[in-house]
Amino acid sequence: MPTVPAGKEVHELSEAMGKTKGGGDTRKWGRTRYDRYLLPCVAEFFGTALFVFSGCASVIENSPGTGRLQPAVAHGLALSISIAITAGISGGHMNPAVTLGVTVAGGLNIIMLIPYWAAQFCGAMVGAGLARAVASSHENFVNSSGGAFDAIRANDQVGGALVAEIVMTFFLVLSVCLSAVNHQSKTPLAPFCIGLTLCVGILGAGAVSGGCLNPARAFGPAVVANHWAYHWVYWVGPLTAGLLVGIVLRTLLGDPRTRLTFRKREASP
Amino acid sequence: MPTVPAGKEVHELSEAMGKTKGGGDTRKWGRTRYDRYLLPCVAEFFGTALFVFSGCASVIENSPGTGRLQPAVAHGLALSISIAITAGISGGHMNPAVTLGVTVAGGLNIIMLIPYWAAQFCGAMVGAGLARAVASSHENFVNSSGGAFDAIRANDQVGGALVAEIVMTFFLVLSVCLSAVNHQSKTPLAPFCIGLTLCVGILGAGAVSGGCLNPARAFGPAVVANHWAYHWVYWVGPLTAGLLVGIVLRTLLGDPRTRLTFRKREASP
Amino acid sequence: MPTVPAGKEVHELSEAMGKTKGGGDTRKWGRTRYDRYLLPCVAEFFGTALFVFSGCASVIENSPGTGRLQPAVAHGLALSISIAITAGISGGHMNPAVTLGVTVAGGLNIIMLIPYWAAQFCGAMVGAGLARAVASSHENFVNSSGGAFDAIRANDQVGGALVAEIVMTFFLVLSVCLSAVNHQSKTPLAPFCIGLTLCVGILGAGAVSGGCLNPARAFGPAVVANHWAYHWVYWVGPLTAGLLVGIVLRTLLGDPRTRLTFRKREASP
Amino acid sequence: MPTVPAGKEVHELSEAMGKTKGGGDTRKWGRTRYDRYLLPCVAEFFGTALFVFSGCASVIENSPGTGRLQPAVAHGLALSISIAITAGISGGHMNPAVTLGVTVAGGLNIIMLIPYWAAQFCGAMVGAGLARAVASSHENFVNSSGGAFDAIRANDQVGGALVAEIVMTFFLVLSVCLSAVNHQSKTPLAPFCIGLTLCVGILGAGAVSGGCLNPARAFGPAVVANHWAYHWVYWVGPLTAGLLVGIVLRTLLGDPRTRLTFRKREASP
Repeated sequence: MPTVPAGKEVHELSEAMGKTKGGGDTRKWGRTRYDRYLLPCVAEFFGTALFVFSGCASVIENSPGTGRLQPAVAHGLALSISIAITAGISGGHMNPAVTLGVTVAGGLNIIMLIPYWAAQFCGAMVGAGLARAVASSHENFVNSSGGAFDAIRANDQVGGALVAEIVMTFFLVLSVCLSAVNHQSKTPLAPFCIGLTLCVGILGAGAVSGGCLNPARAFGPAVVANHWAYHWVYWVGPLTAGLLVGIVLRTLLGDPRTRLTFRKREASP
Repeated sequence: MPTVPAGKEVHELSEAMGKTKGGGDTRKWGRTRYDRYLLPCVAEFFGTALFVFSGCASVIENSPGTGRLQPAVAHGLALSISIAITAGISGGHMNPAVTLGVTVAGGLNIIMLIPYWAAQFCGAMVGAGLARAVASSHENFVNSSGGAFDAIRANDQVGGALVAEIVMTFFLVLSVCLSAVNHQSKTPLAPFCIGLTLCVGILGAGAVSGGCLNPARAFGPAVVANHWAYHWVYWVGPLTAGLLVGIVLRTLLGDPRTRLTFRKREASP
Repeated sequence: MPTVPAGKEVHELSEAMGKTKGGGDTRKWGRTRYDRYLLPCVAEFFGTALFVFSGCASVIENSPGTGRLQPAVAHGLALSISIAITAGISGGHMNPAVTLGVTVAGGLNIIMLIPYWAAQFCGAMVGAGLARAVASSHENFVNSSGGAFDAIRANDQVGGALVAEIVMTFFLVLSVCLSAVNHQSKTPLAPFCIGLTLCVGILGAGAVSGGCLNPARAFGPAVVANHWAYHWVYWVGPLTAGLLVGIVLRTLLGDPRTRLTFRKREASP
Repeated sequence: MPTVPAGKEVHELSEAMGKTKGGGDTRKWGRTRYDRYLLPCVAEFFGTALFVFSGCASVIENSPGTGRLQPAVAHGLALSISIAITAGISGGHMNPAVTLGVTVAGGLNIIMLIPYWAAQFCGAMVGAGLARAVASSHENFVNSSGGAFDAIRANDQVGGALVAEIVMTFFLVLSVCLSAVNHQSKTPLAPFCIGLTLCVGILGAGAVSGGCLNPARAFGPAVVANHWAYHWVYWVGPLTAGLLVGIVLRTLLGDPRTRLTFRKREASP
């Protein structure tokens, strides 16, 4: 199994952004421990907070009956932008399921998994709290559960919602792993590929599960609005999908550097 | 006629993605037969399944009377993303008509034509089946024919629908061939160019033919919902267009490497 | 005044696309007279036809009362895609006003001005004719004037409409000249910058003038639907704007290579 | 504190656009004082005027009751395009709050701060004036306050609106600083990242504060429509956010070249 030397390559997305001078600059100025371990978490915190704030605010203020296009576009673009601007610093995850999938696929040093998760959940709570603070009326806030997910209203919807969350998060995390981690398929368009998968997810699965695809996005407003009905679906679904993508990359879709199967026997020297 | 040595260049899109290190990495790790022949088909399978799932789900859950913008955006983005993330692996077709056009234009080794088609049709069936599994209600599923195309309801609509499918698929496959295969016009924006042509196709031809442009996208939900009215239109139209684009590239629009006409007599050595 | 040697650089956009190998390939295969003079016109013909077809179809089938978002998105994306896929071949104009502005700014050899215009007007007529052929009903076709512009209904609207066409086309042609011709500001995002200016133009000026910005887009459906009311506005407005942008680039906004003012006195050798 | 030698690097965005030849060309032709000091202001003037014109026109002509998607898309795209086409010349600010944040973060020579602001406010007034000139009816102009912000109607809304302006402008200016100034996170997608943050801001904060994020965008139509209710909110909110982003970059998020904290002690020679 290919191993990543600890502290060498904390994340992988920055390389895919087409920057040829980034690494050189950093080397010239020297990277401190802050740069390696704390800075990525700070970036995840700010990115997730701004993404969750934008998403929740767009849901709280959405006029009833105007369809799902408005929240879908707001979430999709906010995520794309958060990823694009933090990609060179933390890899731009904003999502515990993404962090899990990327770690399994070899794109993140495993010692950063828990710190990333902590930063994402803290950011999501701050973002959801700010969205509550600016809500134009308490009525809007209550009607929308503060941007928390309330699409599942009865037990017989749980199965479909869980499958929808798994399939759509599979798409999202596959976008991350293929466009930003896997060397054969990396593309400078990665941030918009990933973010807009969320837009597609809300347009497709909005009526089924709400289109969350992200335990942090679910957790933040759930805390702020104290809304916990069927909350586990938004943890189990996305994290399962993240794990599945990691396994699919390691067995089927990864390039020879990532894949653990069908590899060429290396010639002995 | 320029020939592609078998097994050397299975597809062409990966080069256009602006990756300078992709090839190097693969060479370093060595490409097995799996990498050359099976991996692209696996990528086409996953990409088509996720695209068709997203598309069908967005149609099944579309509120009646909200216009075509919601399914158009969902299809366009889902296709763009599927293409972007698989471009470096399989060229990112997701569409038998694209595979036909690209093959004629010299961008795919002909021995891969049938395997690509098989992967695309299998993926489409899996995607449509998953969309059925998560539908929020059986009523929504039935009303939308499970995402299958039902825009043609009488014989006198067939002519217009067939022409619309041909013209719009011509636009789609031309986008593929010019932005990703033809050397003179390649662009790193290719995946979004191609995917968003489908968005345009649905906005323009949605009321005429449904805006399918893709036999696999038609076939998957037709199997799942057992809906076969005027199904042949979605095979004949797109495949005709794919063939036409290949011919136009070979005779008029291709660069000197692709075009078989108006070429410079090469100097003898 | 900087002169472009005839037959050397027929257009400029291809360079901005980030392709480093394009030129090399063409040089290797040799460029015939077809490549230099006819191929760009063929590309303009196909691009304009597909753009006008998509635009007209989206207007003909637009449900009344759903706002301008649907035609704005359809036009904006169709133009972006047409430009992206032909940029490496013809520069991707699709618009006589753009061709005029780019010529004045030094981005197109003046001997190509009339051939480009001819290709664009022919393409627009073919596109509008195809849109008529596929219209789902004659009623839709008549109600929408076949996609021709009918926003101006009385003489007192002409002034505002003319100014709107001039300002928005100024934005469009400035996008072209700055993002694809002027060396200091070139960007690989050019095709989407240019195309989406049309989307903005329709959202902003749709109720005032219809948001045409393009004599060819106006002419094609006017011929097909025989609708000529206030047609001159869509020629005078955009062409004036194209000329203005050329002048602004030559006097104020161009880089030292393009600008004819404020230049450094070159040292004598 | 890292200092920028006066007159050497007036702005930073141009580098991030992926142009490798831009600098070379300019050097070859020689940069006059016009190029260094006046040209960027001219670019800011034109860019801001076209952005404000598009934004105001899309608000004036927006049909009541069609939601915020139409003005959000128009503003977001118009800003993206204005930034993309002027980025290589002036850095593409179009916003006094951005100029403040970028200056604090070290991306603009401080002697250019006031000239940039002057160009932006002048451009905004010209753009808003042109939007008034083309308004399809005086009624539309009055009902929309000429595109000026009228979301705040009572004192108890001021707090929420101010926080919303601060948080969303923080997102916007952070996008600018991370995607275009900070070396570790620069990306060629910067113009669309920045512009589409405004789209997200309008979708999220439209009902709360109107989603301005820009003193110049507020000032232009306020002058033209003589609408000054709660106008100070759109100066205090965005400028506070711009300052905050500058501080956050200097203390937490910047790369070692920008950040003033946690830096490696440089070895003595």
